[in-house]
Amino acid sequence: MCGNCSDKHHPDEPASPGRRKALLAGAGIAAASSFAVLPAQAQDTPAPVGNGPWRVRAFGNRTAEGPFEPLEIPRRALRPNDVLIDIMYCAICHSDIHIARQEWGAPYPATNFPCVPGHEIIGRVAAVGSAVTRFRPGDIAGAGAMIDSCGECENCVNDLEQYCVKGWTLNFNSPDKHLGGYNYGGFSQRVVVPERFTVRIPPGMNLAAAAPLMCAGITTFSPMQHWSVKAGQRVGVIGMGGLGHLAVKLAVARKADVTVFTTTPGKVADAKKMGAREAVVWSKPEALQAYANSFDFLISTVPTNVPTHPITNMLRLDGTYVIVGAREPIEDVRGSGLWLQRRQVSASLMGGMAETQEFIDFCGRRNIVADIELIKPDQIDRAFERIKAKDVRYRFVVDLT
Amino acid sequence: MCGNCSDKHHPDEPASPGRRKALLAGAGIAAASSFAVLPAQAQDTPAPVGNGPWRVRAFGNRTAEGPFEPLEIPRRALRPNDVLIDIMYCAICHSDIHIARQEWGAPYPATNFPCVPGHEIIGRVAAVGSAVTRFRPGDIAGAGAMIDSCGECENCVNDLEQYCVKGWTLNFNSPDKHLGGYNYGGFSQRVVVPERFTVRIPPGMNLAAAAPLMCAGITTFSPMQHWSVKAGQRVGVIGMGGLGHLAVKLAVARKADVTVFTTTPGKVADAKKMGAREAVVWSKPEALQAYANSFDFLISTVPTNVPTHPITNMLRLDGTYVIVGAREPIEDVRGSGLWLQRRQVSASLMGGMAETQEFIDFCGRRNIVADIELIKPDQIDRAFERIKAKDVRYRFVVDLT
Repeated sequence: MCGNCSDKHHPDEPASPGRRKALLAGAGIAAASSFAVLPAQAQDTPAPVGNGPWRVRAFGNRTAEGPFEPLEIPRRALRPNDVLIDIMYCAICHSDIHIARQEWGAPYPATNFPCVPGHEIIGRVAAVGSAVTRFRPGDIAGAGAMIDSCGECENCVNDLEQYCVKGWTLNFNSPDKHLGGYNYGGFSQRVVVPERFTVRIPPGMNLAAAAPLMCAGITTFSPMQHWSVKAGQRVGVIGMGGLGHLAVKLAVARKADVTVFTTTPGKVADAKKMGAREAVVWSKPEALQAYANSFDFLISTVPTNVPTHPITNMLRLDGTYVIVGAREPIEDVRGSGLWLQRRQVSASLMGGMAETQEFIDFCGRRNIVADIELIKPDQIDRAFERIKAKDVRYRFVVDLT
Repeated sequence: MCGNCSDKHHPDEPASPGRRKALLAGAGIAAASSFAVLPAQAQDTPAPVGNGPWRVRAFGNRTAEGPFEPLEIPRRALRPNDVLIDIMYCAICHSDIHIARQEWGAPYPATNFPCVPGHEIIGRVAAVGSAVTRFRPGDIAGAGAMIDSCGECENCVNDLEQYCVKGWTLNFNSPDKHLGGYNYGGFSQRVVVPERFTVRIPPGMNLAAAAPLMCAGITTFSPMQHWSVKAGQRVGVIGMGGLGHLAVKLAVARKADVTVFTTTPGKVADAKKMGAREAVVWSKPEALQAYANSFDFLISTVPTNVPTHPITNMLRLDGTYVIVGAREPIEDVRGSGLWLQRRQVSASLMGGMAETQEFIDFCGRRNIVADIELIKPDQIDRAFERIKAKDVRYRFVVDLT
C-alpha cells in the first residue's frame, strides 16, 4: 500500500522499467478480465471497417490566422501494430493554439497548413492490426501528443519515449513517414495510432472529461512521480488552467499541502473546492515574497513566460521548480535564487507510455478527471480565443461523436 | 566499502545528519588517538598566549582600487567555544577578489573598507576556549568562508549550516556581532573562529596545498556528494582554475569519466595528468555541440557568466548542471535545453561543517590537495591580477608563517 494515500495499488515511487512492463501488461490483462463489466459504450462491437486506408472528416485551419473549417484528410491502412480509433472526444491544449496559430519560433518547427491540431484523444477502437494484443474493436482507447519514437534508444527501451534521443513524433504537424506530407491530429473523425502509443481507459470513466488527462494530466503527473511528491509536502501550482487544475487534483490525491498561485480571482473558490489549502491571487512578483523558503515542489503550468527568480525563491532547501507550461526562454534565473537553498530548476515533458497507462489507472481508481466544457467543432476558433483570455473552466473538449 | 572506489571509509551517499554527527565525533577521536604521530609542526605546543583580545597584523586594502598594505586589526577574546588559530597559510579565492574589488552588485552587500579578505585558512591552534573539545594548542586546524550561523534552524540542525535560513556569516566583510564594525579574514596573523566552524587537518597533509580545500575543495565536493556522482558516470568540469582543478581530482577520485572544458590550451596537459580522460579547449558555444546528451553531471567553476543553454544541452536524461563559480544572473536558460531530457540547473554553496570534515578526511586518505603557487603577502595585488588573467596553476596561497 502506498504511504501517500490509502490505495493499495498506488506505488510510492516511479515504477522501474521492469515494473512498468509488468504494469503495462497488467493493464491489458485487467482490462480483458473486466471486459464484461465495461460500460455500455465500450461493449458495442462496431461494424467492420476493413483495414483502410481511409479518408476521414477533420477540422483544421489553412493559415495561421484562418478559421477552422471542415476538411477531408487521409488515414493510413493499418499496419500490424496499429489501432484505428473512432475519435469521440478531443480536448484543446494551449499547445494546439501555439502551433495552429504559429506562435512558437525557432527552435520549434514552422506550422504546415492545413493544420489539424488536437492531441488529447479518447475514442472507440474500430479496428486493430494483426499484431495488436491489448485492444479489440469496441474498446475505449486514449492517445496523446506522442505517436511514435525510435523504440531503440536507451530512453525508449526504458519506457521514457518522451525523451527519445532521436526525437519522438508529435501527432500533428510532423512529417508523416507513412503517407508523406505532414500528419493530422485529433480534431477529426478517426486516427491510426501504433498500439504502443495508446492507453486503455478504465471502465466507468467520464470519457469526455478523461480526454484532457492524455496530455494535461500526464504532463503534471509525471514530474510529481519523478520528484516523488509526498504526503505532507508543500506543493505550489502556478497557473490554474487546463494543466494547473489537474495538477491541483493530482497533488491533493497525493495528500500534499497545495497552494495555488493564480492571476484570476474567480478561480480561488474552485482551487479550494478541488482540495487546495490556499489560493493566492497574484499579478506582481512581490506577492510571492511572503512565501520565501516555503515549498518543496513548485510546478508552473503557465503557457507564457513568468520570471523565474520570484518563484525559485519560494522553494525550501533542495526544492524543485519544474516548468511544464512555457517553453522559451526561461527568464530571470538568478544564482542567488538557486544557491541560497540549493534549489533546482527543471522542465518536464508528458510521460512515457507505460507511465501514462499507470496514470490513467491511477485516475480511474480515484475518479480524477478534468473539469470541462464540451463544445462542437464549429466552436474551436471561439474556444481558442476564450482560452487565451483565460475564460475556460478548465478545458474545452471537442465533441466528435 | 564504497562502490565508487576502493576505499572502505568512503561512503556511497551523502552522510545522513545522524551519520554526520558520528563522523564529526569520529574525526576528533581519530585525531586524538593519532596525536603521537602527527607531523612535527602539529606537535609543537605553542607558548601560552592568554585568552585575548589581541591586535594582530593583517593585509588589506583601503579602497576598491587600492593596494594591499599592512594593517593592524582586532581579534576578540576567546569565548568558551572559540579557537584561536595562528594562521600559516591562506589561499586566494576568486570571491576574495570580487569582494575586495567590489565587483558584485546587489543583492550582495557592499564592501566595507579596509577589507581583509582570505577564507581558505590553515593554521596552528594557539589557544582554545574552555568548552572546546576537538582541539588543543598545537593542533592544525582549517577554517573556511563560514564562521557562524543561527545554529537553530532546520538546516543548521541538519548540519547544513551553509543553507542557514537566517543566513550564515562570512568570515570577512560581515557585521561583527562581538566587536562591532565588520570582521576581517585570513590574510592576517591570527583569527578566532568558533569550534563548530573549524575542521581538523589529518596528519601528513601538505598544509599550504591543503588551504584551498577549505573553500574551493568543499565547494566542488559537496555537489558531487549531493548528486551522488558515481564511478563510470560522465562528468564535465567547466573552467579549470582553483575550483576546477580540484573538481577534476575529486571526480577522478570517484572513478568518474571526466572531461574538462577550458579556454586555456595550456591547461589541457594538466587536466589529463590529473586524470581527466579528455580536455576540450573552447571559446564559443558551438564547440560544445558535439557533446549533446553526453554527461550525467556538469559543474561550472567559471567565476563569470557562461551561457547556460549550450551547457545544459550536453546533459543526458535527468542530468544536473550545477553552478558553483558565478553568481548573478544565470543567462540563457532555455526550456528546450531542459525539457528535452528533463535536465536540471542548480547551484550549490560550499558544504556543511560535518561534510567539510568528512571531505578533508577523504582528501587526507587519498593525498588530494591543490596545485599551488606560494606567495608572500606583498604579492597579493599581483596575484589578483594574475588570477583575473587566468595565469595561475592553480591556486595562490599566501604564506603567513
